[in-house]
Amino acid sequence: MALHKVIYDTDIGVDDAMALLMLEFAPEVDLVGITTVFGNIPVETATRNALYVKDLFNIAAPVAAGAGTPLVLESKPAPVHVHGENGLGDIPLPDVIHATPHELPAHRFIIDMVRKHPNEITIVAVGRMTNLALALREDPGIAALVKEVVIMGGAFGYHGHSGNVTPVAEANIIGDPHAADEMFAAAWPVVVLGLDVTQECVMTTAYMAEIRDKGGKGGQFLWDVTRFYEDFYRKAAGIDGVFGHDSSAVAYVLDPTLYAVRSGPIRVVTEGIAIGQTIQMPNTRRFPAAASAWAGRPEHTVCIEVDAQRFLDLYFNVIVDGAKTRGE
Amino acid sequence: MALHKVIYDTDIGVDDAMALLMLEFAPEVDLVGITTVFGNIPVETATRNALYVKDLFNIAAPVAAGAGTPLVLESKPAPVHVHGENGLGDIPLPDVIHATPHELPAHRFIIDMVRKHPNEITIVAVGRMTNLALALREDPGIAALVKEVVIMGGAFGYHGHSGNVTPVAEANIIGDPHAADEMFAAAWPVVVLGLDVTQECVMTTAYMAEIRDKGGKGGQFLWDVTRFYEDFYRKAAGIDGVFGHDSSAVAYVLDPTLYAVRSGPIRVVTEGIAIGQTIQMPNTRRFPAAASAWAGRPEHTVCIEVDAQRFLDLYFNVIVDGAKTRGE
Repeated sequence: MALHKVIYDTDIGVDDAMALLMLEFAPEVDLVGITTVFGNIPVETATRNALYVKDLFNIAAPVAAGAGTPLVLESKPAPVHVHGENGLGDIPLPDVIHATPHELPAHRFIIDMVRKHPNEITIVAVGRMTNLALALREDPGIAALVKEVVIMGGAFGYHGHSGNVTPVAEANIIGDPHAADEMFAAAWPVVVLGLDVTQECVMTTAYMAEIRDKGGKGGQFLWDVTRFYEDFYRKAAGIDGVFGHDSSAVAYVLDPTLYAVRSGPIRVVTEGIAIGQTIQMPNTRRFPAAASAWAGRPEHTVCIEVDAQRFLDLYFNVIVDGAKTRGE
Repeated sequence: MALHKVIYDTDIGVDDAMALLMLEFAPEVDLVGITTVFGNIPVETATRNALYVKDLFNIAAPVAAGAGTPLVLESKPAPVHVHGENGLGDIPLPDVIHATPHELPAHRFIIDMVRKHPNEITIVAVGRMTNLALALREDPGIAALVKEVVIMGGAFGYHGHSGNVTPVAEANIIGDPHAADEMFAAAWPVVVLGLDVTQECVMTTAYMAEIRDKGGKGGQFLWDVTRFYEDFYRKAAGIDGVFGHDSSAVAYVLDPTLYAVRSGPIRVVTEGIAIGQTIQMPNTRRFPAAASAWAGRPEHTVCIEVDAQRFLDLYFNVIVDGAKTRGE
């Protein structure tokens, strides 16, 4: 059943935890590693959270701790108003966590796994792209050996979704724009799930309540961690629920037919008022005056439309069916 | 009838000539001046074209010659593949043009007219914003005395319209991004008709043929000048007609109800791969991390939706009715 060997690279806050359960519960996925990175919370908190969820759901995948700061920019305070101080919506966490981190740092763990399983690894990256950039810097050859890189990040303006940190920048990309630009420069196949599609998928309070009621221990956990996050979105975006940000990357792995896509090389703005903006040169159009900045860059795939109902059904079914299968 | 005293600032190529006839033919408009600027063609050609159209249609408004180069950037070759070598789709032009330019340069002409008619002048600017920036530099006080500045330029991503020179930059703005950023910094009310709305309005071959048949001398002129331009768009954009770029700014002056709008301060990117991009901080959203770059800037209005059929009807009626009234 396991069609996809996945490394999950995550700054594990609330929506990251939602996506992690989707990966762990989906029978088509063999989760072979969790790598952590700063972003929603400091990397130490991300690693602690990954180990906690590993304990809670008996996740076999090892947890490798990754980058704590951007490649070039200065570190910024974590957005505790979005994910809570502990990154998991401030649910109570146990004093003792039994799982321990892998001995390798995240970027070396990624290199190691890709080299061990050439052309088999899908990297699902939903935080800053720093670990991926560090892995590429240390071993550029891995780009040719990765099956696919599926990221949550960026925004391309579809449906008016152009940014959530600035008018043109999304959090995962502006958090380390240099790392993202290096990641997009590599000749591995990257699929981008940006705000264009993630903000079209709202997981409402009623939807989360049904997951809580039918999803066993997983459902209860998802309900608990999303309460704080939902409060944030109610105030900040006026929606009655939470956006399906990081789970969208997992949904693409499980069923890419949910999405309409656009191809072309991608650059990230690394300076000025547009810093953190993702810009694709669509391969359906010619812009001779601008071509040099994108020249020689590999084509990547941007998801521009989503069937939101099918996304919601997929997430629901993976969690509820997984809970039944696992007897939880 | 003349509700609007208009100065028309133009790099007079094909769509600029289309908009000029709309201004001259609309009874609600008192065209009090035409100022020229480089862009679609060098400024000398723009001035020549303005004088030619002034001759051809007995336009009373004086023509003042303006800026020939951007404020900061190096000059680039004119896009002769779009507007032709002569800027008017390479229709034959007479050897002798009778009209002569005004003695003032464009930016001083603008200052002079605004000071003479405080709170009455609408500036319709459809080229690089260089003349407007030069006027503001010389006399910042005019900002408080202009009724409205209505520009064709920029792009904000609506309907996928984000750029026509680069993936995120439109020609009038990237042609002098520093001038545009200075123009948006001034506390005069600016209304922006960008690609979001202009590329939603296609004036088809059949539509232009009907204008030719019913619009007298003006209709014939519009048909003639648009042939080359239409060929360009057929090849470049796959459309069977021409976009209603500059005429959209005139349409807004005549009937702002054609448009849905969004408010907020606007910046222009002046460096890097996003150079020439217009970025509005919508006043319906808060982006604390980015606020400083827009802080203290006046709010302007961006047109984000257009009733394209009503735009087409308006242009048609102004030209055809104008031809009848003028007996041409």
